[in-house]
Amino acid sequence: MDIIVLNRGAKAKELRNIIKKLEKRGFSANISKGTERTVIGVIGDTSKINEDESNSFGAMPGVEKIHRITQPFKLASRDFRPKNTVIRVGRTSIGGKKIPVIAGPCAVESLKNLMDIGKEVRKYGATFIRGGAFKPRSSPYSFQGLGEEGMKILSETKKAVGLPVVTEIMDPRDIGIILKYTDIIQIGARNMQNFRLLQEVGSHKKPVLLKRGLSATIKELLMAAEYIMSQGNNKVILCERGIRTFETATRNTLDLNAIPVLKKLSHLPVVVDPSHGAGKWDLVSPMSKAAVAAGADGLLIEVHTNPAEALSDGEQSLTPDNFKVLMKELKPVARAVGRTI
Amino acid sequence: MDIIVLNRGAKAKELRNIIKKLEKRGFSANISKGTERTVIGVIGDTSKINEDESNSFGAMPGVEKIHRITQPFKLASRDFRPKNTVIRVGRTSIGGKKIPVIAGPCAVESLKNLMDIGKEVRKYGATFIRGGAFKPRSSPYSFQGLGEEGMKILSETKKAVGLPVVTEIMDPRDIGIILKYTDIIQIGARNMQNFRLLQEVGSHKKPVLLKRGLSATIKELLMAAEYIMSQGNNKVILCERGIRTFETATRNTLDLNAIPVLKKLSHLPVVVDPSHGAGKWDLVSPMSKAAVAAGADGLLIEVHTNPAEALSDGEQSLTPDNFKVLMKELKPVARAVGRTI
Amino acid sequence: MDIIVLNRGAKAKELRNIIKKLEKRGFSANISKGTERTVIGVIGDTSKINEDESNSFGAMPGVEKIHRITQPFKLASRDFRPKNTVIRVGRTSIGGKKIPVIAGPCAVESLKNLMDIGKEVRKYGATFIRGGAFKPRSSPYSFQGLGEEGMKILSETKKAVGLPVVTEIMDPRDIGIILKYTDIIQIGARNMQNFRLLQEVGSHKKPVLLKRGLSATIKELLMAAEYIMSQGNNKVILCERGIRTFETATRNTLDLNAIPVLKKLSHLPVVVDPSHGAGKWDLVSPMSKAAVAAGADGLLIEVHTNPAEALSDGEQSLTPDNFKVLMKELKPVARAVGRTI
Amino acid sequence: MDIIVLNRGAKAKELRNIIKKLEKRGFSANISKGTERTVIGVIGDTSKINEDESNSFGAMPGVEKIHRITQPFKLASRDFRPKNTVIRVGRTSIGGKKIPVIAGPCAVESLKNLMDIGKEVRKYGATFIRGGAFKPRSSPYSFQGLGEEGMKILSETKKAVGLPVVTEIMDPRDIGIILKYTDIIQIGARNMQNFRLLQEVGSHKKPVLLKRGLSATIKELLMAAEYIMSQGNNKVILCERGIRTFETATRNTLDLNAIPVLKKLSHLPVVVDPSHGAGKWDLVSPMSKAAVAAGADGLLIEVHTNPAEALSDGEQSLTPDNFKVLMKELKPVARAVGRTI
Repeated sequence: MDIIVLNRGAKAKELRNIIKKLEKRGFSANISKGTERTVIGVIGDTSKINEDESNSFGAMPGVEKIHRITQPFKLASRDFRPKNTVIRVGRTSIGGKKIPVIAGPCAVESLKNLMDIGKEVRKYGATFIRGGAFKPRSSPYSFQGLGEEGMKILSETKKAVGLPVVTEIMDPRDIGIILKYTDIIQIGARNMQNFRLLQEVGSHKKPVLLKRGLSATIKELLMAAEYIMSQGNNKVILCERGIRTFETATRNTLDLNAIPVLKKLSHLPVVVDPSHGAGKWDLVSPMSKAAVAAGADGLLIEVHTNPAEALSDGEQSLTPDNFKVLMKELKPVARAVGRTI
Repeated sequence: MDIIVLNRGAKAKELRNIIKKLEKRGFSANISKGTERTVIGVIGDTSKINEDESNSFGAMPGVEKIHRITQPFKLASRDFRPKNTVIRVGRTSIGGKKIPVIAGPCAVESLKNLMDIGKEVRKYGATFIRGGAFKPRSSPYSFQGLGEEGMKILSETKKAVGLPVVTEIMDPRDIGIILKYTDIIQIGARNMQNFRLLQEVGSHKKPVLLKRGLSATIKELLMAAEYIMSQGNNKVILCERGIRTFETATRNTLDLNAIPVLKKLSHLPVVVDPSHGAGKWDLVSPMSKAAVAAGADGLLIEVHTNPAEALSDGEQSLTPDNFKVLMKELKPVARAVGRTI
Repeated sequence: MDIIVLNRGAKAKELRNIIKKLEKRGFSANISKGTERTVIGVIGDTSKINEDESNSFGAMPGVEKIHRITQPFKLASRDFRPKNTVIRVGRTSIGGKKIPVIAGPCAVESLKNLMDIGKEVRKYGATFIRGGAFKPRSSPYSFQGLGEEGMKILSETKKAVGLPVVTEIMDPRDIGIILKYTDIIQIGARNMQNFRLLQEVGSHKKPVLLKRGLSATIKELLMAAEYIMSQGNNKVILCERGIRTFETATRNTLDLNAIPVLKKLSHLPVVVDPSHGAGKWDLVSPMSKAAVAAGADGLLIEVHTNPAEALSDGEQSLTPDNFKVLMKELKPVARAVGRTI
Repeated sequence: MDIIVLNRGAKAKELRNIIKKLEKRGFSANISKGTERTVIGVIGDTSKINEDESNSFGAMPGVEKIHRITQPFKLASRDFRPKNTVIRVGRTSIGGKKIPVIAGPCAVESLKNLMDIGKEVRKYGATFIRGGAFKPRSSPYSFQGLGEEGMKILSETKKAVGLPVVTEIMDPRDIGIILKYTDIIQIGARNMQNFRLLQEVGSHKKPVLLKRGLSATIKELLMAAEYIMSQGNNKVILCERGIRTFETATRNTLDLNAIPVLKKLSHLPVVVDPSHGAGKWDLVSPMSKAAVAAGADGLLIEVHTNPAEALSDGEQSLTPDNFKVLMKELKPVARAVGRTI
């Protein structure tokens, strides 16, 4: 059921044309003439009207605006699948009662460094190790990641430490190497609407951690998930990582409202990245607790053994000691909302 | 210490004029000539340079921009008062270990209605009753509040129920009536930079609950607090209530990052209003828990015995039953972060 | 005609309750059952449903959301008054073919200073002189304006120079003095939703220049105009002065889209303030031309004889020489869109 | 010259460590001790400090914040190349006195359709034909473009009509086909920070039209240009196409402030896309005039022979008749600012 609102002065002929076009497409029209406007209710399975068709009605003479009632995402919607999706990765899972913590440095820097960090975070309860080998950096003069060498380091660390790996893909041409070395493929915020990349990861079986774009609405995040799922890969993990607003005191504005809204609209698990969401290490602890209290299904936390020498994002990384304290403090918060960590 | 950055092509004469102006005002200049730009460090008590003076340097020929190092707020800053401010109201207080909950309807509608709500929220643990008698409404055709009659209803309810009262002031001409009937004066989001109103409430002794404006930065919120404090009233309670962003799935974007940032910059207590922050009743519970987990010193929650008949904001009001459940669920969250509720 | 969208699982009883409530209020219901949702079209004069009533439907069990079709403003709408409103002030007018330019300093500083500026801007074609005597400043430690003394200076300058005066009101208690000395009353951006102030200026006959709030939507600006007009004062001039966005390269983001949108929705004249909209003097000239090309009915431009000594906003003020050049360059642009300046 | 601001309570040892790290990297430190804070001016060629290194200082104990003075872009900056860049394409050029107009449908739909549109826009003065063969759509269920077939249609239309072609690349794997058929490669807003795609188009010689991301700052847009230029391709055309803000009355907020700011910071040409910037066909005309008046070096305008049947973006497309009127009305505006069209 969609709604077409006509202009105040819409002509009878314009109304007839709209009805004709609706009927040609197999819909019928429910017309309400108000004192100010005429409104057409479109009867039929309007979930089949895509954005283009909807816009084409919007461009017809006499039309003021279109209100869409049907959500544009289907496979990602809770209407489609009422039960929570739980995604298993090795012996752990995302979306269940236990809240997994994905920890590690922003970028893979060296085997020794990642091993050191991996051992520490594992000791304090992390269930995944993260680290970027392909790094999307806003400057071409910044460190761009170690590439395939970084992937191998991740893989060796995984073997030694025993934690599955989360790492980012930036280019569909890297899919082979990514599939070989990683357990969860991350799509970064800047690539949330890189539709070719979404389609590429959608055509494989690996779970995908999909980060919300800096200015993406919740609906657009779900449409990006739909892109992946429409190719056959249902293992999508949504990630709130802060949006861009006018506030400059923090790097981004972490939108925790998004957690319950996403859980209501979708069956997919929702993890939160407070490191990027706040952008300063001393805000990571309170925001991690807040995320868990709001119902997050997982956390993504940047940890580095020496933040002041990190090749990227040192300002927002926890030291292993701070991570240890955080993990300890998170336990009672998780318990308070009926979860474990 | 402030920083003046010169244009790439700034002339020697322009530099001399800036130095002269600095010296006339009692400062000295520390000049660094880089390969690209010349930069002047201003030596002296630059906290005495107000915004105007700073701008006047910005308008001088040869100047590219001014970086201010000193925070513009003083009385509100933690530098000025390192210890947390605790504000006592009757037998309760805001800013201490126990987290007060301010509950009640958006608008005062009738004595019976407010009494009913007051009894319910008190039973489940609220420590303040709220309700608007003067209502800032975006439409002149909406209910504008009961005015003085509403104030009397608040006052009677307070006596009957035993909870101190929080209500909003909209107009400096109402200060007499507000002082007579209320325990905490609320400044609404739309009036956060109504400087005359801030000065008015600053010149009395009543505690002030100051809501963050829809597009106010954290720094501007603290400057608004400074306005009040500069008149002699130190009892300011800051309130995060959601900011305006591009996201339309929720009424506002609740900025919980603001809690730890405000606690770092200021000694003032910080309360959170998840009812306005999310705008939908079923989001109030997760966001209340998140706020407490992030370190909030209090909560402001809209409760109505019959949301579907409420004269305003029914969509975001809890029923007493929902409020009861929420209060129960908040207890372990508060305990998990070393607080009580 | 409004639209009520029901939840996917809405019960028959919930639907009946909504219909009953509609009928009690004198409306009838047009029900469309789609494959996914049931939608109710509200038949009757829904322009009489105010925001509160609409929200109260939104709070009913079974309701997912309300789409409002009717614009909430009436007196300000072009539906209500199809012809452009032209506001006469002395021998000049706003809203006609000739584009008036309101020029002057941010703040009134001294009689000599304002006289100097007034003579210069008049010489180059300004039709109004502006200057603040009551200044809304984000810091309590900044210059707050000369108050009544400033008003007298404005008045003397007006007599000497022969230009009508535009100045800002901040407090309803100042209305007497403002009415005495000014020709157009300005409501500043921070007071756009100071509803008591709007009502105060609405109950007199003086034209009001209403600035858009930093985060106000176009619809909210028109609702603020409606507040003034609902008290009987139809002489409202809308002012676009930049909105707050994530962009930090400029002080604000001047929203020139707002000009044609406002002209379509409303009959009121629209002026533009490029000085605040851009925040840097060298952007004022291109943005003034752009505003005129987009259809602005007037310009508000800050001019100061010595920006580097201005008591406020020096960075965005033009010198008289720059103003002279701008006025000359604006003429062919105005002509190109069928106007004069 | 960069600035490091220390915490209020920074220790002498922390200061020494920072100085040591600076000296190790070949810089010297200019220290200013203020009454409130110590500030370090970094002396040396700080343009060589990349974002990572800057952040690593930010993560050192004792550091409150880093102010960067040097702009992070070099090749794109006007400091690097003071003269305007003019990009020649066939017999026309972008960045000179004459303002080129790039016109055509959102998507290539059929040979006949593109031919029809091409002939019309050419007749009225367009200098380029545009049309998407690879379409980034927010829904996987929307029309995704004709792909290579669309490219061939563009190429045939080019031959028939005699206008060079602008079309979008979405995937680095399509570079071969894009290079074969197009004259200017468009990078869409959603791919502005698809760094691999930027590097790919940067390693060829074709001009690139780079659209600003929905939430990209002006500085980020210039950094994206820098990515392309750092690979050797200097032919970058910047495109303002509207940013995402809280305003919902228009599809985006066209940021015309960006034109003079970009022209000041960079030597690259700046074109404006009012069709996406406003999102509604009847706003395209006023915003096109405003863009030209503000100094735009080109316009991108969606034109379709039958907007109501367009496969995408019909709502914002002009008919050929409207385009004809617009081109006629733009001429005097261009002349008024010393340009031709």
